[in-house]
Amino acid sequence: MATVEIILSRRLRASPYEPRVLEHGAKLFTLYNKMTLPQAFESFEADYAHLKEHVQIWDVACERQVEAAGPDAHALMELVTPRDLSDLQIGQGVYAPLVDEFGGIVNDPIILKVGEQRYWSSIADSDAVLWMKGIAYGRGMDVRVFEPDVSPLAIQGPKADDLMADLVGEHVRDIKFFWFTEEVIADTPVLLARSGWSGQGGFEIYLQDSSKALDLWDAVWEKGGKYNLRAGCPNVIERVETGLMSYGTDMTLDNNPLECGFDRFLKLGKKAEYMSRDALDRIAAEGIEKKLVYLVIGGRRHESARETRDVFDGSGAKVGYITSQAFSPKFDATLAFAFIDIQHAGTGTRLQVITGDGERREARIHNRDWSAPD
Amino acid sequence: MATVEIILSRRLRASPYEPRVLEHGAKLFTLYNKMTLPQAFESFEADYAHLKEHVQIWDVACERQVEAAGPDAHALMELVTPRDLSDLQIGQGVYAPLVDEFGGIVNDPIILKVGEQRYWSSIADSDAVLWMKGIAYGRGMDVRVFEPDVSPLAIQGPKADDLMADLVGEHVRDIKFFWFTEEVIADTPVLLARSGWSGQGGFEIYLQDSSKALDLWDAVWEKGGKYNLRAGCPNVIERVETGLMSYGTDMTLDNNPLECGFDRFLKLGKKAEYMSRDALDRIAAEGIEKKLVYLVIGGRRHESARETRDVFDGSGAKVGYITSQAFSPKFDATLAFAFIDIQHAGTGTRLQVITGDGERREARIHNRDWSAPD
Repeated sequence: MATVEIILSRRLRASPYEPRVLEHGAKLFTLYNKMTLPQAFESFEADYAHLKEHVQIWDVACERQVEAAGPDAHALMELVTPRDLSDLQIGQGVYAPLVDEFGGIVNDPIILKVGEQRYWSSIADSDAVLWMKGIAYGRGMDVRVFEPDVSPLAIQGPKADDLMADLVGEHVRDIKFFWFTEEVIADTPVLLARSGWSGQGGFEIYLQDSSKALDLWDAVWEKGGKYNLRAGCPNVIERVETGLMSYGTDMTLDNNPLECGFDRFLKLGKKAEYMSRDALDRIAAEGIEKKLVYLVIGGRRHESARETRDVFDGSGAKVGYITSQAFSPKFDATLAFAFIDIQHAGTGTRLQVITGDGERREARIHNRDWSAPD
Repeated sequence: MATVEIILSRRLRASPYEPRVLEHGAKLFTLYNKMTLPQAFESFEADYAHLKEHVQIWDVACERQVEAAGPDAHALMELVTPRDLSDLQIGQGVYAPLVDEFGGIVNDPIILKVGEQRYWSSIADSDAVLWMKGIAYGRGMDVRVFEPDVSPLAIQGPKADDLMADLVGEHVRDIKFFWFTEEVIADTPVLLARSGWSGQGGFEIYLQDSSKALDLWDAVWEKGGKYNLRAGCPNVIERVETGLMSYGTDMTLDNNPLECGFDRFLKLGKKAEYMSRDALDRIAAEGIEKKLVYLVIGGRRHESARETRDVFDGSGAKVGYITSQAFSPKFDATLAFAFIDIQHAGTGTRLQVITGDGERREARIHNRDWSAPD
């Protein structure tokens, strides 16, 4: 695994939780929206095992919010996503790829309706705020688009409900997936959402005053002892097992949501105006050229690498490339997301990859839950 | 100096020059436009001394280009900057802050006119491409905005002219500042600009085919022996001495170009439509509240830090904060850029700072070339 040492300069904005993250011994980081995001504390494998059994506290302040506020806020949000937001309630969030007029994915936030004319987009790693500002200006919309002082803190793992019930009250058990409530923790108003970048269950706490970050962290930490709470972070093994795509890694502006298999998150032809309408209609009519698939690679564990791994058909012709991969203890195999030419992208298709040390391995396209195809 | 180890993942795009950068022993990096940018090879001080005497080759592929191409390209470029572009010639570049409708700086690229209806913005660290895409879409402009395959390589230092004359021809000595010519190096067409992020003179080579990056690097390297060419990178000491502000560090979207002292780069009231007109007129009329100044801090060397250093007046009241600082061997003092409340921001004003180890130091606002005020 290639790593480099980077200087924490002023341009790379400090997370307000950073002192705790460093105290708890985060070893590896990435940069995300120009902020540090821990990648490992003990090791990928140990962090993974703990996350699946207990509960972790994650500094995800790098999930910046883009607020759209004003009379045209709803129209702007509808414009930037092919997802139908007409039924979105105050207190509800929804995963919604942001898609430009050419069908390219600009970001893939959770959009939260925080007020009647007020939305947050909890964004992935691109300056979606600039794009939405540009559109709002260009269209002369009556909406203010900006990044508010919001610093999410995630509580993830199977014991997250018990911990948060202890901290906030039993009612948090009833929060539905992607919905949120207004709470006060450590004397600070927060939004508490059932959400987070793992498949292990849990919450994201949207702190709205970064000066209270350490108070919030410490309040959670104080209740954590009996749940074996540890500092953690999004875990590559767990996220691939769970099937969570990462913007910038698995898909970029060069990809459209149809080839990413995001059909279930879109409503093509929705009633509201959306800027990707023509492009997506055309792509849907012409058919996609490649598809992001769930590839299971046999054989023993091999090292991941940044370099794109090519994928081949039986004749040795290149038919695609891997975007993410991790060895899964659960499946005892390497799981990968890969873009594959559409004629080879059917579930069950047998393909081949070549590992970093030159070994040829059998691979097969599985179902979205990684179950074996018929 | 705080550093962390980061994983080079697929989301953090690899520079095509990266193999050479690693071979030459880059020690410290930053992330810039989601790409690695080396920060030190031997040490800040040794790199600085070499840069001021010889010539260096810098991987600045992270200076991404935003191309605007089409019938409305010129109108879009005028719209996004208060700088007057009406006289810009094909083959010429100009430093031009991009400013939004509230007066906030979105980025501060060099804008290059590469064709009659074709511009590049050689950007600092923000997704200006998304902002310009949003504006172009919102305004229904007939222009395509995208990031082309361009990977700049900088040749910087007092011997850069000799080296490039050897490599390309004597005519490169005649290229004027921020102008560029079309050349062929290593059998690859490039744009060669007199430009770069130092005050030591030199060029930026705009490679237009990233697959040729190592050929280009090697072609330069081969001619470099007699000029004591080394691999280098933008150097914090040199850039502060030279007075180069860094977007994201010294100014952000929260700052307007007037308080940054960028008046000489603007033409308020220019003939073309520009989106920051009303905001900048208002700010100019009302007067700025703070100003980015050139602060010289006395006493021996002290460590830089990411934490913002507060600046105080004689009574101990906070009057501003430092954005960048470096100990300058040339001036035998710490040079800093600092935002200071306007009533204390006059050249010659005596102020105070407190260093990381708690020591109080005298400081004084100097002229823009760091010369002492009268």
